[in-house]
This record gives sequence, C-alpha cells and structure tokens, in this order.
Amino acid sequence: MTLSLIDVINEVDSFRFNNAYYKLLTHDSSAVLGYIAPFVAQFFQHTPSFEFDGDAKTIKIGSEYDSFEKRNALFQNVGNQWRQHPEFHELLDKGWRNELYTVYNPSSVPYVLIERAFSVLLGVVTYGVHINGYVPPENSSNGKLKFWVPRRSATKPTYPGKLDNTVAGGLGYPYGLNETVIKECFEEAGLKEEFVKSHITSTGVVSYMYLTKDGRVQPEVEYTYDLKFDNEENIIKPQDGEAEDFQLLEVDQVLEKLHNKEFKPNCGLIIVDFLIRHGYITPENEPNYLEIVSRCHVSMPFACR
Amino acid sequence: MTLSLIDVINEVDSFRFNNAYYKLLTHDSSAVLGYIAPFVAQFFQHTPSFEFDGDAKTIKIGSEYDSFEKRNALFQNVGNQWRQHPEFHELLDKGWRNELYTVYNPSSVPYVLIERAFSVLLGVVTYGVHINGYVPPENSSNGKLKFWVPRRSATKPTYPGKLDNTVAGGLGYPYGLNETVIKECFEEAGLKEEFVKSHITSTGVVSYMYLTKDGRVQPEVEYTYDLKFDNEENIIKPQDGEAEDFQLLEVDQVLEKLHNKEFKPNCGLIIVDFLIRHGYITPENEPNYLEIVSRCHVSMPFACR
Repeated sequence: MTLSLIDVINEVDSFRFNNAYYKLLTHDSSAVLGYIAPFVAQFFQHTPSFEFDGDAKTIKIGSEYDSFEKRNALFQNVGNQWRQHPEFHELLDKGWRNELYTVYNPSSVPYVLIERAFSVLLGVVTYGVHINGYVPPENSSNGKLKFWVPRRSATKPTYPGKLDNTVAGGLGYPYGLNETVIKECFEEAGLKEEFVKSHITSTGVVSYMYLTKDGRVQPEVEYTYDLKFDNEENIIKPQDGEAEDFQLLEVDQVLEKLHNKEFKPNCGLIIVDFLIRHGYITPENEPNYLEIVSRCHVSMPFACR
Repeated sequence: MTLSLIDVINEVDSFRFNNAYYKLLTHDSSAVLGYIAPFVAQFFQHTPSFEFDGDAKTIKIGSEYDSFEKRNALFQNVGNQWRQHPEFHELLDKGWRNELYTVYNPSSVPYVLIERAFSVLLGVVTYGVHINGYVPPENSSNGKLKFWVPRRSATKPTYPGKLDNTVAGGLGYPYGLNETVIKECFEEAGLKEEFVKSHITSTGVVSYMYLTKDGRVQPEVEYTYDLKFDNEENIIKPQDGEAEDFQLLEVDQVLEKLHNKEFKPNCGLIIVDFLIRHGYITPENEPNYLEIVSRCHVSMPFACR
C-alpha cells in the first residue's frame, strides 16, 4: 500500500459547515457572503449598522448600505474600530496590511472592499496566485524534476519557518492576476517581468474551505502557475524579507517534506496539484487520487469573482 | 467580452438531483449506488429481488444479496431479462457490450459487476480513460499546438459523426487504468505500447453528472492523459472501425469546433481541461474560469473506486 497524500488535503480542505457558524448576509438578504466563527460573531452584537440574529445565526449588513461605496466605508470603519479590541490585537491590528480584498456578489460583481486582515475574520472568499518554480527533468543536471522552495522567515506572523511555494501572493484591489504575478515574482524572488512572461504558464485554479486553528473558516481560491526554469542557475534574488532562503529540492525530497507536513498547508496542496498534473502522483500510486483531485476543486458556497 | 466555453461544460455537467429520480440502495440500505430515471425505475416494480418503494422513491437490492458473487449473478440475470423488453431494445439489447463495469461501495471496494450497457440505465458511476494526443508548439511545423482528432464513425450508435478525443475507453473489469490505456491506444489508434509508455503523462481526473437526452443520469469519472507526439508524422493506424478519420487540428480550429459543439460533449470537456492546464484557456480570457474548473471536478454523491 502506497503512503497516501490525502492528509495534506485534509489539513487544507478542513472546514465542514455546522450550525455554530453565523451567515454574513448582504444588505438585501439575497445572498450569504461568508461564514463567521462564533467568537467573532459575538462582536457584531454591539456593532451598529449590522443586524445580529442569534436564533437564525445571521448577521445582516444594514439595508441602508445599498451601494459599493457605502459598504466600503462601513467595513473600513468597523475594521478600524475592531483593531482596538484586545481580542483582535494579533489577527487584526498586528496583521493589518493596508491592502484591500474584493468580495463579489453576484458572481464577478464587486460588492465590497475589505481590509485583508479583516476579511479573514469574516469567512469570505479570498483570492491569490501560487507559482511553482521548477526545473523540468530535461533541464535538470541529474534528470530529476526539481522545485525552487523558499522557507518562510522565522519572524513571519503566519506559519513561520514553514516551506512555501516559490512565489505566492494575495489578489489585492485593484490589481489583476497577471499584474499580481509579475509584482509578486519581483518582490519575493527578484524575477524580472521579461523572464516571468516568457517562462510562465497558467495551469488552473484550486479552491477549498480551510478551518484555522482558532475556528475560523477561510474559503480560498488560488490561481496556479507553473514557472519553468531553463537550468539550475540560481537567478532568485528576494527583494523583501519574507523568505529565509530558497533551496532547489528534488521531487523525492519534496514528497518527503509533504508527508512530514513541512510545507505551509495550502502550499502543500498546490504542490500536490502540480505533481498530479505532471504525472508524478497518479491514480496507480495514490489510493485517494479521485478524492484528492475533487477536494482541490471544491465548489464555493458563495458568489465568486 | 470573450466568448466563454461554459456552454461546453453545461452540456456535460448537466444533471441536478430532483425528487423524480429513484435511489438505488445497497442490500443493507447503507448507501445509495445510483439515481434511476423514472422511466427505468418503473420496470423494477415487477422485478423480483428488488424492493420498490414508490413513495420513498427507493429501489433496494434484496437483503439476501449479501455477497459480491450473489449480486453479480443478480444483475447478470436482470440485465439478460430486460434485454427482451422492447423499451430497452436500443439501449440495452443493441448496446450490449459483453463488458463488465465495477460499482464500488464503500469506496475502493468492488460491490457488484454490471454489464456496461445495463449500468447506464442505473445511474451508477462509470469510469474511463481519455487521452489527448497532441503535438506541442516546439514540435509543430508552424509553432502552434495541434491535436490528433478523430471523427466518430457515422454508424456508431452513440454520437455518430461527432469529434472525439484521440483515444478514449471505458474501464472494464478486470483491467486496470494502465492496461486500459495501452489496450485502447492500440485498438483505436494502432499506437504501440512502447511508444505510448514513453510519451504519455497521467494528468488528472475529471468528474461530472451527465443528463442524457432521455432523462437518465450518467455520473462519470474520466482519468485524463496527455500523449505528446515528437513531430507531425501520422503514426496513427486505427485497428477498429470506431473512427472515420483522424485529423491534425490546430488549437484555433479546436476552439472553434468546441464553440460549435462539434465534439462529443464529454470529449469537449476533456479538451477544455487540457487547454486550462496548458495555459490556453486562462482566468484572463475565460470569464467563467473558476466555475468551469470546479464543474470539471464535481464531488460524486456516491462511493467511488
């Protein structure tokens, strides 16, 4: 029996809805925008402009917030007030990014912009790009597939010291996907636009419902890209301090580190998806193949971009 | 606004459960094996060994069928009897393949073997392999991605004259996936085992619930493979009469034929999945990108292999 990688997926697609969660409703009650954990939901009881219903387990945006601009201002104000709650010091105040995420409703239509750190309290869908930088067998010194794998800085607030995808970043307003890819490849790896554009391929999108350790749900949609290197020369020059170092790891080492949970959970899922698309994980060597592929592509219960 | 390929997916992931359908239950009522259309379900009213409940809309296999062997014999007998019903002449008698499909329950455990033509009356999950034979840009005479595309014989009972994937076949008992790939590549395209093994990559699995024109549901799980050709030389020599001809089509022609619905529906979905993985369909040029990817990977409501 082959050792399955299903545990990598179990760590990421880990949320199942239950009645403890509150539904965040649009101002006209026409749709659910997110699932809010009880410890966050209670703060809405005392937040004006929201209608809190403890029996129905709903938190509705006030009916008067009938425009994009009004809703943006509302969430900006509430986010700024909540920063001062000691309970949210770590997540919201320390985590504050000055970066806005777009929540959509109906699909493809921006409904409200929310500060990135605030959005993860609300259980709304967030978006990002994940880029696997790899040296294919034909360009590799020993004929083996290799990945450029950074280790997250020990001082990062989230998942310090864990292994990461070569480049990854959130889709902040008003950037598009291609802009975000170019921007993040430069900031995180010092890769030039010309190199990225000529070596990158869009390869799909993964989606899953992640349950955090403190009980929040983070529905995530991550667009995936393969960045194929011509050889093993190290042309990566990080411009920010997010990565401690970059290592060129062989596929067997990557598999071992996946099994050992050395990757940040969602980055592990992204690598599993890569290894499936490239024929390293197959229905013959992975007993839970179909389940893994399905759970990398969960249908979101909310409107999306 | 780019023309979306969502219609290709709408044609394939087309079933939504409603109460008109009957649930086929295991002998111990512990699980649902399939959804049966009303016009098929009524025949179970007069079929001994099944418990038909018109109110609960369930059809349960008799409790005495408590072994794999007993269930195999039951479905063999019933299939043979039903062949004689004039209502099933086309689907069952003319379609009879002398090929057994495995139904699983619980997951990965064979529960019963059912004749292929009979299985599509019962709304159970069926499995297959779909292989895209392609010439990548770097091996193509004009630098454009090309596909080897067969046209289904005009005399085929299903989807005559439609375009198909290069090679495709059902996963019949007792063959494994790799055996089926090798067998079908030879039968349908005359490709030798040595060539196939050295040029093929396992790339994933798609799953969807297909609603047939006559109202049956066919939950399908299709394992996908990319077969990369070294050049444009035509080495395809069909051994059976399933294809009328094979054409080498450029990606732009394939996209046009996808939009024109010239492909057998599920083969269209398989090509869309290929074009997403290879960066031809991207989140920037396909407005329904996330929905398309999700609906190519629907979580099956039944146990699977």
